[in-house]
Amino acid sequence: MLSKSLSKYIQSLHQKKFRQEHGAFLVEGAKSVLELIASNYDTDLVLTTESFYKENVRLLDKQRIRLEMVSQADLERVGTLATNDTCLAVAKTKENRFLTAEADEFALILDDIRDPGNLGTIIRIADWYGIRKLICSQTTADVYNPKVISSSKGSFTRVEWYFCQLPDYLAGLDKSPVYGAFLDGENVHTMNFSRSGYVVMGNESNGISPAVEQFVSHKITIPRYGDAESLNVGIATAVICDNLRRSIT
Amino acid sequence: MLSKSLSKYIQSLHQKKFRQEHGAFLVEGAKSVLELIASNYDTDLVLTTESFYKENVRLLDKQRIRLEMVSQADLERVGTLATNDTCLAVAKTKENRFLTAEADEFALILDDIRDPGNLGTIIRIADWYGIRKLICSQTTADVYNPKVISSSKGSFTRVEWYFCQLPDYLAGLDKSPVYGAFLDGENVHTMNFSRSGYVVMGNESNGISPAVEQFVSHKITIPRYGDAESLNVGIATAVICDNLRRSIT
Repeated sequence: MLSKSLSKYIQSLHQKKFRQEHGAFLVEGAKSVLELIASNYDTDLVLTTESFYKENVRLLDKQRIRLEMVSQADLERVGTLATNDTCLAVAKTKENRFLTAEADEFALILDDIRDPGNLGTIIRIADWYGIRKLICSQTTADVYNPKVISSSKGSFTRVEWYFCQLPDYLAGLDKSPVYGAFLDGENVHTMNFSRSGYVVMGNESNGISPAVEQFVSHKITIPRYGDAESLNVGIATAVICDNLRRSIT
Repeated sequence: MLSKSLSKYIQSLHQKKFRQEHGAFLVEGAKSVLELIASNYDTDLVLTTESFYKENVRLLDKQRIRLEMVSQADLERVGTLATNDTCLAVAKTKENRFLTAEADEFALILDDIRDPGNLGTIIRIADWYGIRKLICSQTTADVYNPKVISSSKGSFTRVEWYFCQLPDYLAGLDKSPVYGAFLDGENVHTMNFSRSGYVVMGNESNGISPAVEQFVSHKITIPRYGDAESLNVGIATAVICDNLRRSIT
C-alpha cells in the first residue's frame, strides 16, 4: 500500500522543478528499471507489482534497495506511463560534470533539442553507435524528464551528458573538428570524417543557431533523393552517426 | 460558425470505422493542408481561421473547395491536434490499388507496423529517399489515422500504399530481391544492393513474422558499435534506405 506522502513525492518528480529540488528522477517499466539497477546510478526506491517482484527477486533483493509492493493501478496513478504492470524506480540524478571528446572519440552536441521524445531517441541512437557523451545547450529538454528516460529504452544508463552554454563550450575546445548538420553542407556519403570530434544537431524547427554555427568547421548534409522537406532530428542523427561509423571503421 | 452536424462528422473521422464508412479522412495543420490541396487527392472541405484564410486566399479560393471560417478553439475541438491555429481539411481516401516495384525501383514492405507515429515517420523517410510505394500488412496501422497523416509532414501526398496479405503478395512476385531487416543479417555497410526490389521492415516488438521471413532473399543488419539493444523501426528504415541509396547511386 502506497502512502499518500510517497505518492505525492513520486508525482512531484514529473516536474523538472522538483526533480532538481530532490536530485531525483523516475524510471518506469521493466527494461528501464532493470538497466537502472545494473548501472552506476543510485536507486533510492523501487515500486513493484508482486508478479514482477517474484520474477526478479534475486536482482531486486540483492541490491538492498527499498522496495514497495504496489498494484498496476498504483504504478499508473503515480507514474507517467498509460500502461505499466511491472515497476517504477526513483533514482538519484548525477551532477552536471564537464565532458569532452577524447582523441579517439566522437561526442554529440545538441543545440536546443526541445522535444523529450527526440532527446530520448537520440540517446538510444548514440548508445547504438557507441557515442558516450552528449553536450547539450541549456535550452535542450531535461534529460531526467520521464519521457526522455522512457524513450531512451535504458540507454540513459550508458550515455553521459553535460549541459552548458554551447558557444562558451565550443570556444574552449582545441582544434577538434566540429561537424554540423545543415541543408547545404557536404554530402555525408562522400565525407571523410576524422577519427574524433563533435557532431552538432540543431533545433527541430530552426536548426543550428548562428551562435553555434560559427564554431562548425565542417557543414554536412544527408543527401535527398525524393521530395520530403526535411527529416526528423532523431532520424538525421542516426543517418549521420551511421555514415560517420562507416567512414572511420 | 461550425454546425453541430459538421462538427460531429469531422469528429467521427478520428475513428477508422467512420473513415471507412465515409471514405474520408482528416488532414490538420498548415503545411499538411497546403500539400494536400496541391496534391491529386480530392479535398472535400477546409476549415480555416480567418488569418490563415487571408494569408492563403489565392490558393484556397481557386480550388473551389468548400471553406468554413472557424476559430482556433473550433479546430482544436473537432480535430486531434492539441494546438492548431490554422486549418483542417477533410479529403477523400483513395481505393486500395495493387502496387508493385518497377524494374528500376524499390518499394518498402511493412509487416505489422502498429504505431501510427512510426508509420507516419516511415512515410516521410520513404519520401526523402525517393521511395514511392509501401506494401502494408493488414495489421499495419491505418494510413488515414490522423496521427499517421500529421507525422508524415505532408509526405502522405507523394507516397502510395497497398494493404494486403503479405505472404500472398510475396508469393506472387517474380524473382525480385526481397531484403529484410534482421539482427543477424549481412552488414548494410558492405551489402551490394541490387537496383530494384523490396525492403521488409518488421513489427516494433517482434520483427518480421515467420510467414513473411520465408520470402526474404537477403537478410540485412545495421551494424552496432555500442550497447543499445535495438533501434526504433523508423530509425532503422532511414538507415537502411540511406545505405541502399548510397550503394546503388
